[in-house]
Amino acid sequence: MHRSRCLSSRAISDAESESDNKMMKCLSCLEDYRSRDAGTCKECYEEANETEEELKREIEDLKAKVAFLRFWSPLDHLHNRSNAPCFTDVVLIASGDGAEGYAVPLPAHKAVLVSRSPVFKAMLENEMEESRSGTIKISDVSFDALRAFVNYLYTAEACLDEQMAYDLLVLAEKYQVKHLKSHCEKFLISKLNWDNSIMNYTFAHQHNGKHMIDAALSVIIDNMDKLTKREEYMELVEKDPRLVVEIYEAYMSKQVNTAACKDWSVK
Amino acid sequence: MHRSRCLSSRAISDAESESDNKMMKCLSCLEDYRSRDAGTCKECYEEANETEEELKREIEDLKAKVAFLRFWSPLDHLHNRSNAPCFTDVVLIASGDGAEGYAVPLPAHKAVLVSRSPVFKAMLENEMEESRSGTIKISDVSFDALRAFVNYLYTAEACLDEQMAYDLLVLAEKYQVKHLKSHCEKFLISKLNWDNSIMNYTFAHQHNGKHMIDAALSVIIDNMDKLTKREEYMELVEKDPRLVVEIYEAYMSKQVNTAACKDWSVK
Repeated sequence: MHRSRCLSSRAISDAESESDNKMMKCLSCLEDYRSRDAGTCKECYEEANETEEELKREIEDLKAKVAFLRFWSPLDHLHNRSNAPCFTDVVLIASGDGAEGYAVPLPAHKAVLVSRSPVFKAMLENEMEESRSGTIKISDVSFDALRAFVNYLYTAEACLDEQMAYDLLVLAEKYQVKHLKSHCEKFLISKLNWDNSIMNYTFAHQHNGKHMIDAALSVIIDNMDKLTKREEYMELVEKDPRLVVEIYEAYMSKQVNTAACKDWSVK
Repeated sequence: MHRSRCLSSRAISDAESESDNKMMKCLSCLEDYRSRDAGTCKECYEEANETEEELKREIEDLKAKVAFLRFWSPLDHLHNRSNAPCFTDVVLIASGDGAEGYAVPLPAHKAVLVSRSPVFKAMLENEMEESRSGTIKISDVSFDALRAFVNYLYTAEACLDEQMAYDLLVLAEKYQVKHLKSHCEKFLISKLNWDNSIMNYTFAHQHNGKHMIDAALSVIIDNMDKLTKREEYMELVEKDPRLVVEIYEAYMSKQVNTAACKDWSVK
């Protein structure tokens, strides 16, 4: 009887360890998995599915709203050489960078400019020279960048490469078009690396790109041992040493934090 | 020996049934659940979480885009009695329903009307009377409905009750503003019940609301036994018997389908 008890208890213990390894089928990927790799119960799985469907419906609704609110740009008319009137009441002209010689005026609507930019709003609503003449000169910008800028004000879309993102960020900051500025910052942050970090850090400071400053600073701090050897570093020390000080301050602050974390984890 | 085998196999079978009832913790709701109520594996749970985060980020981006593209409406100026110019170049006037006597002209931008409605586009781009005079008369509409209509063209927002949804759907169909029409249809479908189904079915037919026709038809068919007793039914037989025929046709088609499904499940 004693032996049989022993046997039966070993059998139970075998079965228990089997039960830990018991295979279940995942309702999502339909693969088998062991109980220790379990994720959710059925109810939560079903709720998560519903949530995902709801979020996708919300996305579809918002996309339809964007499509409805998006303006055709008067530049499409320019491009398509359509004869239909656009009812534009102002033109923008790129000046600077030798652009004036062949600058094509870009037609626009005062109402759109005013709606998208508080700077245009102040300019056009207060009967300044630009409002009377119906011509707004934009300095230090290429024709292509200005065209992309105007297009963004109508459509909230821009086809970016790095140069275009720099140009549009400058315009967005100058005319306080926050949505475009954030779009350019996100793009440039996605292109950040050690090689362009100091240049981007300086650029972001010049044009008040706060997210970009933080992102560039983070890349620079991760490469502090190589910093002083870079040409851009030496240029920055020469031109704007306060920005260099900020780098060192951020580095020191990170070091202090890391040390505090280590102390805390040891305790 | 035989007895001990018996014992151990019963022990295993007990342990197995325990393993079926083994409790696991759901990573989502943190409640315990039995293995037969398992939903997903851990990997799929983590992926689903990431997907949800991504979808939420996309929603935030789209909401920011909508906010950027949304126009301030010139009617806000009217309301706020702001002195700032709106650069409007056209007015809309509600006529009919005794509105003309005290109709306030609603200022708007040709560019916005043209961008939102192909009917306004044809009207204003082809130098018709409305474009020359800068006045568009909208017949058979209340001032409030026209104001809400114009506001929607600028903001893609409308505060709906049932009457307003009917009025705006009529305008949306007349001026082919699809996004608004779909918005009104969704609202009215959400308010459908047996009491208003025949009226909504007739209304939807008059204004080409396809989704609303289907939804109302479905409610009517679920209540066929009570149909002929309703006053609206008798009115419809009188006024537009083709629509009544369509109800019966839809009912018969559903009956045939249900019968076919039953046959199939019996086989």
